[in-house]
Amino acid sequence: MIGRLNHVAIAVKELAPAAAQYRNALGAKVSEPEPLPDHGVTVVFITLDNAKIELLEPLGEASPIADFVARNPKGAIHHICYEVDDIVAARDRLHASGARVLGGGEPKIGAHGKPVLFLHPGDFSGTLIELEQA
Amino acid sequence: MIGRLNHVAIAVKELAPAAAQYRNALGAKVSEPEPLPDHGVTVVFITLDNAKIELLEPLGEASPIADFVARNPKGAIHHICYEVDDIVAARDRLHASGARVLGGGEPKIGAHGKPVLFLHPGDFSGTLIELEQA
Repeated sequence: MIGRLNHVAIAVKELAPAAAQYRNALGAKVSEPEPLPDHGVTVVFITLDNAKIELLEPLGEASPIADFVARNPKGAIHHICYEVDDIVAARDRLHASGARVLGGGEPKIGAHGKPVLFLHPGDFSGTLIELEQA
Repeated sequence: MIGRLNHVAIAVKELAPAAAQYRNALGAKVSEPEPLPDHGVTVVFITLDNAKIELLEPLGEASPIADFVARNPKGAIHHICYEVDDIVAARDRLHASGARVLGGGEPKIGAHGKPVLFLHPGDFSGTLIELEQA
């Protein structure tokens, strides 16, 4: 069911130093920061040869990553995103297997403009998984 | 400098339930467990279309991930591995930038039989980075 690893998201308090380390110390291709107010984050995209890293900084008072960053002030990996061909079929398979889909199981439009779901970390080795319809 | 994202490593207390969730709930291609006693881990490889996930379980009394798993009993992402063309050139660039390379900066042979280095999480957004010579 899952196909490509789309991205790994790393949440940080401040984008600038995190992006500078990827640009300078690791020589990666790093975008300018892009505010996504509807998603409560500002994002920097790091383009690798086969996948992306997304650096996320909280944006606004209701940012969904504010608590996570407060608990992890040095930064930490927030989630990992896998692609699926059909998000509704994926949801149904997950429900049938007993895995918990967050937010009631209705796909939402994610930061890339595509339908996404998030899965409960307690069912997947303590890691928050995002599924994105490719 | 960094090229492909080679793998994301997730450390768990027990491989079997973690592997079963990837196989059954997520429909991924999941290998049998492979003990790597020289590295103090047993590993399950999850092959995605463009990268790998590695599930790691501590093996032996001196496992380098034993403390991490004790601190994260539900599991957690342990490190992320990027490929570089030349590990010594990468090390020199990192040193020049002021980033900390663990273990004195001498590449070791990693779990895939290739030279690797680990970078200090404090210099990279709280994430442990492995560099592997491709």
